[in-house]
Amino acid sequence: MDNSCWTIGVDLGGTKVEVARVGADGRLQERLRRPTAVQDGPDAVEQEIVTAVAELRQAAHTAPAGVGVGIAGQVAPDSGVVRFAPNLDWHDVPLQADLHQALKLPVVVTNDVRAITLGEWEQGAGQGCDDLICLFIGTGIGGGIVSGGNLLSGCTNTAGELGHITVDMHGPRCHCGRRGCLEAFAGGWAIAALARDRLELDPESGLALLELADGNVAAISAKIVVQAAHEGDPFAQEVLETAVQGLIAGTVNLVNAFNPCRLILGGGVMDGLPEWVERVAQGIRENALPAASANLEVIAAALGDDAGVIGAAALARHTFTKS
Amino acid sequence: MDNSCWTIGVDLGGTKVEVARVGADGRLQERLRRPTAVQDGPDAVEQEIVTAVAELRQAAHTAPAGVGVGIAGQVAPDSGVVRFAPNLDWHDVPLQADLHQALKLPVVVTNDVRAITLGEWEQGAGQGCDDLICLFIGTGIGGGIVSGGNLLSGCTNTAGELGHITVDMHGPRCHCGRRGCLEAFAGGWAIAALARDRLELDPESGLALLELADGNVAAISAKIVVQAAHEGDPFAQEVLETAVQGLIAGTVNLVNAFNPCRLILGGGVMDGLPEWVERVAQGIRENALPAASANLEVIAAALGDDAGVIGAAALARHTFTKS
Repeated sequence: MDNSCWTIGVDLGGTKVEVARVGADGRLQERLRRPTAVQDGPDAVEQEIVTAVAELRQAAHTAPAGVGVGIAGQVAPDSGVVRFAPNLDWHDVPLQADLHQALKLPVVVTNDVRAITLGEWEQGAGQGCDDLICLFIGTGIGGGIVSGGNLLSGCTNTAGELGHITVDMHGPRCHCGRRGCLEAFAGGWAIAALARDRLELDPESGLALLELADGNVAAISAKIVVQAAHEGDPFAQEVLETAVQGLIAGTVNLVNAFNPCRLILGGGVMDGLPEWVERVAQGIRENALPAASANLEVIAAALGDDAGVIGAAALARHTFTKS
Repeated sequence: MDNSCWTIGVDLGGTKVEVARVGADGRLQERLRRPTAVQDGPDAVEQEIVTAVAELRQAAHTAPAGVGVGIAGQVAPDSGVVRFAPNLDWHDVPLQADLHQALKLPVVVTNDVRAITLGEWEQGAGQGCDDLICLFIGTGIGGGIVSGGNLLSGCTNTAGELGHITVDMHGPRCHCGRRGCLEAFAGGWAIAALARDRLELDPESGLALLELADGNVAAISAKIVVQAAHEGDPFAQEVLETAVQGLIAGTVNLVNAFNPCRLILGGGVMDGLPEWVERVAQGIRENALPAASANLEVIAAALGDDAGVIGAAALARHTFTKS
């Protein structure tokens, strides 16, 4: 294996930026993690990345083949301009061109969920599979789709907004403005919101949950709901039951539409609820079209927080080397 | 253009079988249409196809490069075995092998909706577009997805069951056993069922509709509902409003998940409701994520009944020739 094919992966989010050296074999070699200086604007964040890349290069004998960046936002294809990144409050930032100029290295920028999907596909739970869906359930929900061995990007590079497939057109309001999106059931913010709403209607039943939040309704998070449920609180368990029913309906949609071989579930909410993998698998078996779910495997994501940098580095390797 | 690249397309459904000669340019040259002898079993239906192919070959100076068949059912990839075709009552019929043996020509068998999508993509409303969704709304609803220039087939060749994406998990019961599928709102059978159900609850308001059905509730079809609505009947118009709201929710799902450039609407129900194209386009503009629908065009299918044979012939051309 050509040593010169090592690449750099960057995972750029609203709270932290991770920059990693990844070998030609796709394995993580070293990773730097820093808080994102959102308040200082794009120039400062780009400078952080440049500094981290320099640090990673010091330990290497050769130059990297290129840099891949996954960012939580909408990215223009080819140009790598970040059209909009809500968590960073960026609009039309030419991230790819800026980093290329500063680093004198080839740079490719993509959406973070697409990068994570590529990471899981190549090095994680998706290995050896040409038809898969990755669904990442954190505060929000996003996804990536591999069909026939291609990672789908769509017409304007935004394919995979799987959090915003409707499962109940009369259901709870979503952040996107519509009703009953998958995310409005099973996203972390929705789980917390549902618990708070039900607590308001029925304070008695929610006492155990409220206690875990130190009596502060506003402090109830998805994490606290999960904790309460795992401690046996029926109120919290019912909240999660509503969430998982929405998740099952959403994954059944995806299975019927795409007929994947593998459905990979990851993200912070899933990390706290490993039992949901089997719940979703069972829900799909019971509800999806038998022909569409015949060969389906439902499994947990394997790379955790590393998927983003590994996937971004893989994208750089595919884009800038022959391997 | 090599004349030897002409192919034969077959569209095999429960009521009729169409067999056509299609030129190397993808254009329909001649078509034969016969009723499907379902009651006589697979052998008789296959013999009908063989006879029609012989008839089409008589007028040609060269042998066709191959035969493509689109069938309303589940087809095993590669082997072309028809696993299940409900309208023909076929189970595990080796259609591809049987026809190959009888015709002494290369044969490829696929699902009818996939063939229709290929036809619209190459010769119809999808020309020049690498990211599109075809949604066919007839008695049932099916679809085909082209993403990044590839027609998606899925893990077990059943991708595109777009009639069975849920839009309302508490909604009306679907034939598949679940609740609130897109098809259970906007499929022809669902439109008729909704009209009949509402008529039972409120016979007074449905009088105009009932009259069009000669007073026979069981005779109310989607076609009659559309006719009544077009004649100004508010009862029928409300039924169609429920259907189109489901259709909008379903298409918004597809746009958010796939980010297509073009959404092509076809099938018998759409043929009767050309005004729905603009309704759906407007609904998507108002409800889909702006980034996912930015460049989207919503248009009617262009090939009508010819799409099936044209697409099946195109599949044969791609499979068996270099063009």
